[in-house]
Amino acid sequence: MATNYRLSLLLIFLSYLTVPLLAQNSSKTVQERMGYPAMARLLVIHGDDLGMSHSVNRATFEALEKGWITSASILVPCPWFAEVARWAKAHPDADLGIHLALNSEWTGLRWGPVSGPVKVDSLVDRDGYLPLDTPAVVQNAKMADVEYELRAQIDRARKAGIRITHLDTHMATLMANPELFGVYRKMGSETKVPILFERTGTHGAPGGNAMPDDALVQQVVTMEPGVAAKDWLDWYKKHLAPLPPGVYQLIVHLAYDDDEMRGATWDHSDWGSAWRQRDVETMKSAKFRKFLKEQGFVLVTWKELAEGLPRATSTTTPK
Amino acid sequence: MATNYRLSLLLIFLSYLTVPLLAQNSSKTVQERMGYPAMARLLVIHGDDLGMSHSVNRATFEALEKGWITSASILVPCPWFAEVARWAKAHPDADLGIHLALNSEWTGLRWGPVSGPVKVDSLVDRDGYLPLDTPAVVQNAKMADVEYELRAQIDRARKAGIRITHLDTHMATLMANPELFGVYRKMGSETKVPILFERTGTHGAPGGNAMPDDALVQQVVTMEPGVAAKDWLDWYKKHLAPLPPGVYQLIVHLAYDDDEMRGATWDHSDWGSAWRQRDVETMKSAKFRKFLKEQGFVLVTWKELAEGLPRATSTTTPK
Repeated sequence: MATNYRLSLLLIFLSYLTVPLLAQNSSKTVQERMGYPAMARLLVIHGDDLGMSHSVNRATFEALEKGWITSASILVPCPWFAEVARWAKAHPDADLGIHLALNSEWTGLRWGPVSGPVKVDSLVDRDGYLPLDTPAVVQNAKMADVEYELRAQIDRARKAGIRITHLDTHMATLMANPELFGVYRKMGSETKVPILFERTGTHGAPGGNAMPDDALVQQVVTMEPGVAAKDWLDWYKKHLAPLPPGVYQLIVHLAYDDDEMRGATWDHSDWGSAWRQRDVETMKSAKFRKFLKEQGFVLVTWKELAEGLPRATSTTTPK
Repeated sequence: MATNYRLSLLLIFLSYLTVPLLAQNSSKTVQERMGYPAMARLLVIHGDDLGMSHSVNRATFEALEKGWITSASILVPCPWFAEVARWAKAHPDADLGIHLALNSEWTGLRWGPVSGPVKVDSLVDRDGYLPLDTPAVVQNAKMADVEYELRAQIDRARKAGIRITHLDTHMATLMANPELFGVYRKMGSETKVPILFERTGTHGAPGGNAMPDDALVQQVVTMEPGVAAKDWLDWYKKHLAPLPPGVYQLIVHLAYDDDEMRGATWDHSDWGSAWRQRDVETMKSAKFRKFLKEQGFVLVTWKELAEGLPRATSTTTPK
């Protein structure tokens, strides 16, 4: 482990030399625009899928309250959204975004579009739900329906009193092609909050290498299938430690390995109930908290990240 | 307890004298039309709210598989409907009806109409869900919307491969006025399955004392608020033992007192998670099974009850 740390420190040192290459189109880096030094490493620790189940809600509420994560985003079409709205009223400073959803990926627990299957019929499968996987969305979704439904999800959250700090995209479906990405950016612009996208990877803007000025997150770090339970903490350390200065989002999936969550994820071991409980245990662990501190990560929220938007050039400005 | 049994037997004996008074409009009683003697006591033990949560599903599936209950009905708009459909495919002989729903009564776990809030806007509250209570439905629902939505619930179940044996009404909302009751009867007629209604009580037809020929159930027995946990079994015995010959439905609400169900029912102790686990424990208990046997109740399903419909006079005929 000590060797890993020394290696990480070396990588960080080397990366200082490359900061200018990584700098964005505007003259300052995101972290600088937020008032941090150029060599700072800012990290949003983000819980996805809030509202999906009571198990996800219990775990995510506790993680937000205790500071194990700094932000989370909500699946508005999901059955437990009303519980999220109640919690949000009691925690008005919680950093909450909308996890814009065009998929319903679990086979036993399903959800449909907020606007209903009749109104946005290109968004539903033959059972009347949002499709299980992303290719079905890419193939069938009409952009007018996507726009109508995503606006309905945002409206429902706002009407429920939630102060939205950002938007992101469930299963990265809105990054699947330029048309979907266009609607995603439009929703950010209308809602006047930043949206999550990164230079490369699952949350990278489709169809180009250019990094738009309003891409606040340099890279998303998120657990991959195939990691053994005993290696969970080390995987996170190994992927966070070598990051150069910049702004990052660590996406975690929090829930308990309880009956409800086992029922929901019975045919998915990846992102399943045991996976999610490992994420809870890792995020709350003293070892991980110590690692973040020693590495000098600055934990931030999306509300804070919005301060890093290039005010002059972007159509998306913070509230 | 022995005194209670003797009293019950006396009441049953006395009730034989009154059977003709209770007989329905047609010449034979329902139990006779089903091939049982006039003095038989037939009982459907029915689990409501299947599909509402994984906890309800787990408890109800087990109760159906083990014969603790004989029938159940499904809340099609609920998040765990897909799990019910999967189970139903593996249990094609299970007696399953549709628990036609116009309400979504839990404050943290909500559901909307299957057809969506835009299509049937008179059926949703300002949050876009089916209303929390029945007066809101009675006040706002347009009958065309009710008909469209109930048909959509039935269609979704049929498309999912469920062989529907009966229809009933969540929170008895479809018994609230003659117009709603008219739509309920129409759905039964279209679906060609019997619907649950009784001579009097929460499931009695509104606006009249006449007992239509197709009222298969003489009386519904279901737990009431205010009964102490220790008196649960005795309450059921006390309400079942004195019933005269006829056809009855015992409605139970099965689930576990687990995190999910505590979350769903956090602000309702009536019909809450502890209540539902007591129902599970009572239905599965050797004491209750012994009581039913000693009392001579004949346990039946809705599929069997359909044989008791007056074929000549009713528009509702079994499949």
